[in-house]
Formats: sequence, structure tokens, C-alpha cells
Amino acid sequence: MAGIFDEGLERNPANFAALSPVSFVERSAEIYGDLPAMIHGARRYDWATLRDRSARLAAALRAMGVERGGTVSTMLANTPEMIEAHYAVPALGAVINALNTRLDAGLLALQMNHCEASVLLTDREFSSVVAEALRILEADYGRTLRVVDVCDSEYTGPGDRLGADEYEALLAAHPPLAVLEGPPDEWDAIAVSYTSGTTGAPKGVVTSHRGAYLNAVSNVVTWAMPNFSVYLWTLPMFHCSGWCFPWTMALLGGTHVCLRKVEAAAILGAIRDHKADHYCGAPIVHTLLINADPALREGIDHRVKGMVAAASPSAAMIEGMARLGFDITHVYGLTEVYGPASVCVKRPSWEKEPLAEQVRLNGRQGVRYPLQEGMTVMDPDTMAETPADGETMGEIMFRGNITMKGYLKDRAATESAFRGGWFHSGDLAAMEPDRYVKIKDRSKDIIISGGENISSIEIEDALFRHPAIAACAVVAMPDPKWGETPLAFIELAPGADVTAEDVIAHCRKHLAGFKIPRAVRFEEIPKTATGKIQKHLLRKRAQSTAAIG
Amino acid sequence: MAGIFDEGLERNPANFAALSPVSFVERSAEIYGDLPAMIHGARRYDWATLRDRSARLAAALRAMGVERGGTVSTMLANTPEMIEAHYAVPALGAVINALNTRLDAGLLALQMNHCEASVLLTDREFSSVVAEALRILEADYGRTLRVVDVCDSEYTGPGDRLGADEYEALLAAHPPLAVLEGPPDEWDAIAVSYTSGTTGAPKGVVTSHRGAYLNAVSNVVTWAMPNFSVYLWTLPMFHCSGWCFPWTMALLGGTHVCLRKVEAAAILGAIRDHKADHYCGAPIVHTLLINADPALREGIDHRVKGMVAAASPSAAMIEGMARLGFDITHVYGLTEVYGPASVCVKRPSWEKEPLAEQVRLNGRQGVRYPLQEGMTVMDPDTMAETPADGETMGEIMFRGNITMKGYLKDRAATESAFRGGWFHSGDLAAMEPDRYVKIKDRSKDIIISGGENISSIEIEDALFRHPAIAACAVVAMPDPKWGETPLAFIELAPGADVTAEDVIAHCRKHLAGFKIPRAVRFEEIPKTATGKIQKHLLRKRAQSTAAIG
Repeated sequence: MAGIFDEGLERNPANFAALSPVSFVERSAEIYGDLPAMIHGARRYDWATLRDRSARLAAALRAMGVERGGTVSTMLANTPEMIEAHYAVPALGAVINALNTRLDAGLLALQMNHCEASVLLTDREFSSVVAEALRILEADYGRTLRVVDVCDSEYTGPGDRLGADEYEALLAAHPPLAVLEGPPDEWDAIAVSYTSGTTGAPKGVVTSHRGAYLNAVSNVVTWAMPNFSVYLWTLPMFHCSGWCFPWTMALLGGTHVCLRKVEAAAILGAIRDHKADHYCGAPIVHTLLINADPALREGIDHRVKGMVAAASPSAAMIEGMARLGFDITHVYGLTEVYGPASVCVKRPSWEKEPLAEQVRLNGRQGVRYPLQEGMTVMDPDTMAETPADGETMGEIMFRGNITMKGYLKDRAATESAFRGGWFHSGDLAAMEPDRYVKIKDRSKDIIISGGENISSIEIEDALFRHPAIAACAVVAMPDPKWGETPLAFIELAPGADVTAEDVIAHCRKHLAGFKIPRAVRFEEIPKTATGKIQKHLLRKRAQSTAAIG
Repeated sequence: MAGIFDEGLERNPANFAALSPVSFVERSAEIYGDLPAMIHGARRYDWATLRDRSARLAAALRAMGVERGGTVSTMLANTPEMIEAHYAVPALGAVINALNTRLDAGLLALQMNHCEASVLLTDREFSSVVAEALRILEADYGRTLRVVDVCDSEYTGPGDRLGADEYEALLAAHPPLAVLEGPPDEWDAIAVSYTSGTTGAPKGVVTSHRGAYLNAVSNVVTWAMPNFSVYLWTLPMFHCSGWCFPWTMALLGGTHVCLRKVEAAAILGAIRDHKADHYCGAPIVHTLLINADPALREGIDHRVKGMVAAASPSAAMIEGMARLGFDITHVYGLTEVYGPASVCVKRPSWEKEPLAEQVRLNGRQGVRYPLQEGMTVMDPDTMAETPADGETMGEIMFRGNITMKGYLKDRAATESAFRGGWFHSGDLAAMEPDRYVKIKDRSKDIIISGGENISSIEIEDALFRHPAIAACAVVAMPDPKWGETPLAFIELAPGADVTAEDVIAHCRKHLAGFKIPRAVRFEEIPKTATGKIQKHLLRKRAQSTAAIG
């Protein structure tokens, strides 16, 4: 467009800056420099110090040759060094690849090779698996990289040093970069995070400065987070850039409370001692707190907000959190949409509903994140929206700035994920009449029996109503007559004594006949590092299962 | 940059959308359609209805030929139609020019001509001045435009209809636009707002979709506003697009409570009856509430947050607000930076300070808005930052996305405002050691006496310590010996009996000799429509004032 509102009104350094969450770090260092930024065991950093350390790390990485478009991998726990990497690497225009610390050496090597990392920051705790990964990286891929050892003051266990450089010595040796700022193009990549692989080979999800900036802000809007919030790191930071919370806290001049391990005593201690008021995690984190020794909760008298993802909060969790005086928010997302991309916003009227109805309402994946442009449910073939009837299944689709650039070196997967102008989540859901989305299943988890679609989640919901069932997962099992039938894997509560027949009888009360599991197996259910059930492994086990009767 | 993180990772409709606050309207209509959006007297609209009305207005304007790059002027009170115009006009890619309803016909005509408006939405209350403005527009500028009359249900006073179209009939006649969305380029103009002219001729400040989006979000971050907030329109919406709050409320699915007039009974009634929890305004608005009959405040038991701008909150205001249980936030800004662009963020430690210190701390203009990139104090000639000593005066400078595109049809003024890569605010200030900015004066308000710079604000601060002084303003008065000397204009509190000599004696206790006013005039102080003191008018009066002794 050219007209009176454009002539002489161009972008210039005074009125335009590329969006980058790195700018939040400079802002907090500038105006809140003397306020607390970081607590980790005995360590305390204010914002000036945290910024200084990050700027020293950036200078050290630059001296190692890291530049715009390069990659730095991390194999770190939730420590200050991990936060500093999230501030330093993007300030070079480089890309951070935060490795999942629970992966095996082969996968670690594959990922570091795939994203062409030139430097690795690694915590001594992971030395043995990392040593093996580095060996594979060189032997199988012919790639070597600079290794920087992090010797965390809070880690006292075994673990060799692997590299020529030690983190603290490196910071001491490099004067800080003058300014921490993002690259000139806000579309530049900020991170590459590999999917956890519930449905196949991991893919490298590339996110941008623009998207990370907007999602970091979206967290504040979603949760109405005030300045100086105190955020407890129960969520692994390697998971989708810690849902962008490293940058959210910089925006608020807040305090990071680091945690190497997710344990009830440490979590409740940090909440009490440091007045931590926000944390995120899979259901297991929240359940841990509910089941903790009540003595551990003594002295906690402030409001705490928790975000739960990866599964809907159960009745027990919603009740338990209310008993603790904690406020729980259910979010849903994927690595491809920067972590949480929808939130089950609680409407004021829900408070008056009975618990069962609150569980149903809060159990939905909800509505799109504030700064995401679109979220809907569509038939993935016709790209027509499904009716908002709460029944018709379709695929959850997202579009907008909080959607990945694409998959690294995988144009076909990228184009497939974005076909029709929307990101295809792979999750099957229905749109409810109030426009809240409710997941029915992963595309690959649907069970097709005698031509009928069966939601494995619907069966799991029914199973969960049985008081003795602690965990469960339902997958398809091959059936010569029906094609597929449901198979239930079950973990019982401690001390429970329940038979397969009891389970089937329970299901008959809640499910249509064709949805009742044809077999039940009592065994441990495999989960990913982030707590997601690995249904692809269960499907393999299902090949060797025989139906009942 | 071209590398592995760009190849095959381009922007596409799934992962990129131009930022526009219009998208917030669609989101709230989609997911909060049945929740309240608007209260105005007996009128109530939910988000679906408010969106529908805005989309009908957009369709009607399109039918009148309004298109991308065109201009629509409004002469409206704080009514639903004004909100709807802020949703509809940008959805056409057109630019909204919200006229200050207190201007005279000549200025109104000048502005509508300058921004080339093709349509005017006008409230019947302003018919007589608008009729005259339209006459001038045609006679002096040869311009005619389509006039749409707004006949607000809450306005019962006199006023003719002026145009061929009536607002409600127009909505009824036009099916709504299918989608409300911003233009493809987020740099497109969204509004042109004329400065209030405290220092000279009004200039047309052009803002962008990108900036409005980011400032609408910044309001939420600054204030930690929750979803479903209830915002009371005490701030004139014609002032810097209502500080972007029309769009902030759309982001939160909140409720607009409209108000045609700023009166204590109406404000406190709305706070009580509609649970309004946020409002903005000049000091006069807050003082109105403090001085209101306590009976009007009965039944208000929820937390209310007020934002104050245009002058520092006085001790009386801070005390009074605390007594009301209202929480006050001091912000500072200009039309050129979308309204508030800095905020005096209250640090937790301030609560323990005595009142006088709290007044001093909260009286500062503070730190840059969360999503603004830079705010500092510089020598405008050398563009060097002044030391953070709380003393050295320089000019407040801003840079970043929440800075105007520039002045309409005024390349010279735009370039001057942006020289050196920063927006020059025209306000003189010092950077305090904690990096909070404290205004000392407007560039043009500084008094240069015998070669010494005297801050008129410092003198006003001293005058305000006198209990009998209700309002005051100090300007330079010509002096044959010193060049300039300070002249004080004073409004006394009702019933007060104070002489010029008393005032001078009071000043001697607080000010250095050369800073003491050489003359005192007791008379009404002229203010702009937004409550800013018009010092240029006082300077004219100063030409005819004689110094004492």
C-alpha cells in the first residue's frame, strides 16, 4: 500500500525493533538490576548478575565461533546455566538445542548431528551417557564439537569432566557482551527441540524469535502473572524451551527457583522458603504434592498457581489441589506450538458447579492461547470445520505466530504438517458447543473396530472411574473378525486386588458393548521423559495379546 | 540469513499472521460469545453481539467506499459506537481519526481535512459544533464527507441530526463482514490522533497495527489484568485510541462499561453495580472519587485499580486512594508512544516506606512499558545518556515498536522527532540511581534565569506543599535583568485566604533564592480537554505580568 499513511512514515530504529525475548533480559537487568533473579541452592543472582553471566557466556560462545545460524546443544538439568544458555545463545543469533536428559546415547548423538551443533554444554551428572553419545557422534557421523562442562554447586554425585572448558572458568575469562539483543530478523530461529516421539522418529521443531516472544507474553496474559512472580522450575526446561517461561520471567523481573530434581520435599520447601507462586508440570508433579506428607506443607500460606498439561486433571487432582489452596490451570499443546497453545480458561460460572461437572469442564483442552491466531477442529481431508456438537471427531488445528517455522531438514514433513494452511496437531477432538475443544484421541490411537471409531480416551475415562485403577492406557489390538479391538493396560493402586473380569464388569456399566476392552493386562505402562504414555510401545506389546473369549 | 534454519522453513499461512488487535475481537466473539462485552445504561451486549455490530459497521463503511488506507473520523463520547468504530475501521485496513470532542469547529475541520476523512460518525450531542466544522470544511477546504449520526439511547439532550444516515439503521441494513481481521501488513496505519497542542500546532500522530497490538498487550502485562476484567471508561477514548484499552478488553474477553460523562456518582455507581475493577484518567478523575460523598461508595467491596497520568499523584491522592482501598498506578506517556509508555512500577520494598517517601517514589515517571524497547534520558544534542544521578537534566527518549510511524504529511517534524534513532519526547527529566525516570520539565517549560536552568515542576512541587493551594502552574516571565524569572499561577482551595506574600514566604522555605517566583497570580488555569495544563496560554499571559519588587 502506498498512501498518505505510508509516505514519510517508514520503519526506522526509533519506531521499529525486531521482536526477540532476549530484549526482556536487558530490560530487567536495566531497571530491576538489584532485584532477585535466581535462586539455586545456596546460589543467589540478581538481574544484573544473571545478565552479566549470560553476556559472558555469549562472549565465550562467540569466541568459540558460534555465530548467527549456528547451534549450541545443552545437556543440562534445571540449573542457572540452563537459563543462561536461553539468554546467551539467542543473543548471538544462534539456535539452542536443549537435549532431553533422559535420552539414550544413540538418540543424543543423532540429534546433535542432525542440528549440526558446534558446542555442547553438559552437566557432570550426565557424563557417562554424554561420553558415549560423543563417541557415537564421532564414530558414526564424523562430527566433533566443543564440550563445556557444567559443575553445578548443587550436584555432588559422580561424573567425569569431558571437555577442555569448565563453565565458571569460561565466564571468568570472557568480558560480557555489550548488549544482549536478538537478530535483525524476528523470523530467525531461536531453538530446535526434538519431539518426544510418541508416534515415531523424533523431528527437529524449529521455533522463531517472534514466536518465542509472543508465547512468553501469552503466558503472562493467560495466567495474569504480576511483576516479580517467583517461578519454580518443576517443568524440564528442555521441554519446548521450558514453555518459554525462561523469557516470561525476564519480562516480569521475576525470580527463577531452580530444581535439579522433582521431589515433594524440595518443591514444597521452595514454595515455603522462597514464596514460589507459579509452577508447571505433568499430572505426576501435582499428584506428588497432593500425596506429600502434610507436614511438608506447613508454613505455606500464599496463593500458588500450577499449570498442568499432558493429561486432563482428574477429580482427585482438582479436589486435592483445592484442599492445598492451589489454583490449577489446564493447558494443552505440542512442541510444534511452543508448548501450551490452548488453555481451559475457567469461566466464573463454573465455580458454582458440582465437582463432577467441574472435572468435566476443566478436563477439556479449551481455547486458543491469547496471542495465537486460530485453533479449531477440522476434517483433515476436507479442511471443513466439524460442527460444535461435542461429538463429531476431527483433528485439532492451529495457525498463527505461535506455530513452528517447520521441521529441520524435513520439507516433506513440514508441508504435510501445514497442509491447507493450518498446523495439523495429530490429536483427534470434538468442538463442544461453548467452543472449548475436547481431545478424543491421537490420530494414531483411535481404534477402528468393525468400521466404528472408538476413542481410546473414552475407555480410559471409564476405567479411571474405578477406584483401584491408578493408571491405564488403551490401544488397538489386532482382531481377525473386527479388524481391531480395545486392549487395556492397567496399573493398580497399591494394595488393590482386582481381576480382569472385575474390570470388564466395571466397563459394562459405563461403555457401549463394542467399546469394552477385549483384553486387560496388569503391567507397568511405559512413559516418555515428560510423562507421556508411549502408546507405540504398547501397540507392539498388543501384537502378542489374545482377546478374552 | 540462509542456512539450515531457514531452508524450507518459510513463513506460511499456518505459522505467520500480521499482528493486529482486531484479531482479539474475533477471538473473544468465538470463545466468549455469550459473555458480557458491553454495558451502557440499559444497553447490554455480549461478545457475539458486539462483534456482530462491529462487523455490520465495517460492512456499512465498506459500502460507503471506505477501504484500505482511507480515513474515518469520529466525534463520539465514550459510547458503544466508539468501541465499535475501533473494531470496524481497522478491520477494513482503514484509519480511525478520533476527534477530541472539546475542540472548536475550526480545529475539527482542519483535522478532518488534513487526514482526508471520507466519513464522520458523530454523536447528536456535538451537532452544533460539528455543523459549523462541516461548513468550514466545505467552505475553506472544499471537502465534503458522509456523515453518520449516532443517536445514543443514553443521550436525551438537544442536537440535530446532520447526515443522511443514522447509525442503528445502517447496522440493520448491512449484513456483517464475514471476518474481522487486520491488513496483510502489520505496519499499516491503524489510527491518526492529533496531539493536544500544549506546545503549538496539533500534529497528526500515525500509529500502526503492530504497535497497537503490542501496547494493548502491554497494558495487561503492566497491570497483571485477568480475563474478564471490567473496564470503566473514565478516560476519553479519543485520547491516543483510549490508550489501546478498547483492544486490551477484547484480548481479555472483558467488559466495557461506557460513560458519557465523568461524574463521581456515575463512576462509583458503575464500580458498585457492575463490579468495574479497572479505570484510567487524569488526576482530576481520581480526586473526584476521593472527594465524593462517602455514601456514594457504599457497597463497593472489591479491589479497584486506577491508572493515573498527566501529572504525578500527590500525597493527598495516594492517601485518599489507599483510604478508598483503590490501588493506583502512575504512568506517563504521549500520543506519539500510544499513550502510557512508562510505568512507575511499585517495588515490594516501597510498602514499608513512610508516606512522604512513597509519594516521592510513586511520583516518578518510572520505567519503560514492558513491550517497549528503550526509554532513557539523553542530551538531545550529543545523544549521550545522562548520568543516573537524579540531578542531571536531559530529554526523555523512547525507541521501539510502541512508537508512532511518524507525523502525517510532515516529514520534517517526523525526522526531527526521530533524530539520532530515538523519539524525542520533549520532556526534560533526570535518571535516578534506580533507573526510574523523573520528569523535571517540558523542554519549552524550562525557565532560564541568569543562565541557570530552573525546573518549573520543582517550583510547582514546592507550591503544592502549601495546604491552601489546589492547583498551580509556573512559567517563565520576561525579565530585563535575568532574561526570564518564574511566574506562578495559583488556584486556591475553597475558602482559603492566602496572599502573594504568603506564597513567596512559603517558597523561601523550600527553594533556592533564584527559583522563587517573582510574581504570583491567583486565577483559573487553562487546561486541555485531557486535563493537561496549557502552559503556552499562560506564557502569553506572562507577557503582561510585572515582577514583584
